[in-house]
Amino acid sequence: MKIGIDTMGGDFAPIEAIKGAKDYLAGNSDAQLFLIGDEEKIGPLLTEYSLPAEACTVVHAPQVIDMHEHPIKALKEKQQSSIAVGFGLLAKNKIDAFISAGNTGAMLVGAMYSLNPVEGVLRPTISTIIPKENGGTGLLLDVGLNSDCKPEQLNQFAIMGSVYAQNILGIENPRVALINIGEEEGKGNLLAQAAYALLKVNRHINFIGNAEGRDIFIDKADVLVCDGFTGNIILKLAESFYEITQRKGINHEYLDRFNFENHGGTPVLGVSKPVIIGHGISKSKAFKNMIILAQQMIEKDILGKLKSELEN
Amino acid sequence: MKIGIDTMGGDFAPIEAIKGAKDYLAGNSDAQLFLIGDEEKIGPLLTEYSLPAEACTVVHAPQVIDMHEHPIKALKEKQQSSIAVGFGLLAKNKIDAFISAGNTGAMLVGAMYSLNPVEGVLRPTISTIIPKENGGTGLLLDVGLNSDCKPEQLNQFAIMGSVYAQNILGIENPRVALINIGEEEGKGNLLAQAAYALLKVNRHINFIGNAEGRDIFIDKADVLVCDGFTGNIILKLAESFYEITQRKGINHEYLDRFNFENHGGTPVLGVSKPVIIGHGISKSKAFKNMIILAQQMIEKDILGKLKSELEN
Repeated sequence: MKIGIDTMGGDFAPIEAIKGAKDYLAGNSDAQLFLIGDEEKIGPLLTEYSLPAEACTVVHAPQVIDMHEHPIKALKEKQQSSIAVGFGLLAKNKIDAFISAGNTGAMLVGAMYSLNPVEGVLRPTISTIIPKENGGTGLLLDVGLNSDCKPEQLNQFAIMGSVYAQNILGIENPRVALINIGEEEGKGNLLAQAAYALLKVNRHINFIGNAEGRDIFIDKADVLVCDGFTGNIILKLAESFYEITQRKGINHEYLDRFNFENHGGTPVLGVSKPVIIGHGISKSKAFKNMIILAQQMIEKDILGKLKSELEN
Repeated sequence: MKIGIDTMGGDFAPIEAIKGAKDYLAGNSDAQLFLIGDEEKIGPLLTEYSLPAEACTVVHAPQVIDMHEHPIKALKEKQQSSIAVGFGLLAKNKIDAFISAGNTGAMLVGAMYSLNPVEGVLRPTISTIIPKENGGTGLLLDVGLNSDCKPEQLNQFAIMGSVYAQNILGIENPRVALINIGEEEGKGNLLAQAAYALLKVNRHINFIGNAEGRDIFIDKADVLVCDGFTGNIILKLAESFYEITQRKGINHEYLDRFNFENHGGTPVLGVSKPVIIGHGISKSKAFKNMIILAQQMIEKDILGKLKSELEN
C-alpha cells in the first residue's frame, strides 16, 4: 500500500513529519511512504534521519498552504502545494491514503471536492476521540464538517462511527447514543427528536438512547452522535479545558489523555479514500500514529465496510 | 419586600433551606421570608434553628413534587405542593420573588404558565455562571429552556444577559459574544449566521463577535449567547468535568469554582417576577445566595430594566 504524507503541513513541518515517517518505518514495513513537499527541504532531512530509501518516495511540491489561508482560494491558486499535490495523487490512484497536519479547511475542501463520497453517504463526517473517565475511549461525531444536519445524516454518522469504533478502536458492538438535553425519547430540539426516531429503528447499530452533556466523558456510550455545530463546541471546549489545566499547573494522568497531540489525527469518514487530518501541533508521534491509522483503514477496508453497512 | 422559599425542594430539604434562611437573616433585614412547605416539618426547625419569628411567615403546603415527577402533570395534580403554592402566591402578588431547589421542570413550567413574560420578551431564558480562567465570571445563556431558537431570540438573550451581567454581576459594558464554530462573520450554522447579523446592529449591547468552544472559559467575552440545546450541553459538560476531577482527586482552586453549589441558583429571565431555580444539591450557602440574588433583582429592578431595554 502507498500512503501519502504532506511533510509541509503543521507547526513543526517538515521535520516532525519526517521523524514520524522514520519512527513508523522502524516498526512497520507494510507501506510505501510518499513524502510530499519541497524536495530541497525534505531531501537533506531524509539523509540526516537515515530514512530507508527503498520505503520512501519524495514527491516534489514547492508550494505550501499556510494555516490561515482561505481553503478554497488557496487550493485553487496553489496547485503545486503539498495538499493539492496530495489530493491529485489520491484522485489518480497513485496513493491509497493521504495525511496532513496542514490547513484543516483545505484538507476538508480537498477531501470533499477531489474525492467522491462512498456510495450511499449523504455527507462525509469528521470525528474525535473521547477519553473516558474509566480509561476507555469513545468517538464523537460530527465535530464540525456539517454545522446544519438533517436527521438522516445523524443516522448515517451513527453507522460510520460504529464501523470505525468496531474496526479501529476495537470496541465490540459499540453502544451508540444521541447527544441530547434530556434522557428520555421526545426530549431535545427538533433535530434530536427526529434523529432519535431513526436511530431507534436502525438495525445496523446498537442504539442505547440519549447522552446528555454530563454523559460524554463517562462510560455511557461508545459512539456519540450530534450535528457538527454541537460537536465542534464540545471538542474545542474539551481541548481548552486541558489547556487551562496545563496553564494552571494542574497535572493528572487522566488530563493527559486530553492531549490530542497523542491521538494522531482524525479521518474524514465517508469519502472514497482514507484522508487523515492532523492537529497543527502534531509532532513525530502524531505523524507516526496517523500513518498507522491510514494503514489500518486500508487493511481493514473500512470504506468497503461503510459502503456495505450503508447499502444493506 | 417579600421573598418566597420552597423549603421542600432539593435533596436536603427542608433543613438546608431553613439554615439558608437563617444565614440570610443573620446578615440582612430587608426581606420578609415566606417559608413554603409542610408546617409540621418546618415549624420545629424554625424553633430549633432560632429563626426570628418577625422575619418569617410559614405558608403551609402539605404536598411535594418529587425530582422525577412529570412537571406539567405534577403541577396540575399537586395544587397543594410547595411549588404550586409558591407560584400561586407570586401570581397573586403576595410575594415578590420565588425560590426553589426542587423539580426544575416544574419550576420552569410554573414560571412560564403562572406568570406573564416581561412585555416584549419573545421567550424567557435561563443562564449559568461561567468561571473564567482569569478569575472573572461570565454568563452563558440559554442553557436549556429553549432547545430550538430563532435568531431574534438569541438577540434578546444578548440584551437580557447584558442587563443581568451589568446589574447583578457588576460588569461594566459587558462584552457579548455569539457561541459559534468559527471566528469570522459568516461562519456557523444557519441560526448562528442569522443571529450574528442581528447582534452586530443591536445598539443595546456591546457585541464583539463569535466565541468558539475554546473561548468560553477564557476572558474573551462576558455574556455568551446560544440556543438552549448548545448551552445545556456546555453546562452539563462543564459540571461533569468538575465531578470527574473530584472523583479522581484532582484538586485546584480554579476547579472549585465549578462547584455550582456555591453559586446559588439561576433566575428565569424574562418573566414578570424574579423566579430562581436552585440545583437539587443546594445546601444552606446556596439557599442564602439565592435569597440575596432575589433581593438584588428586586432592589435593582432588573425586570423593569429588561423591559426598558427591549422596548427602546
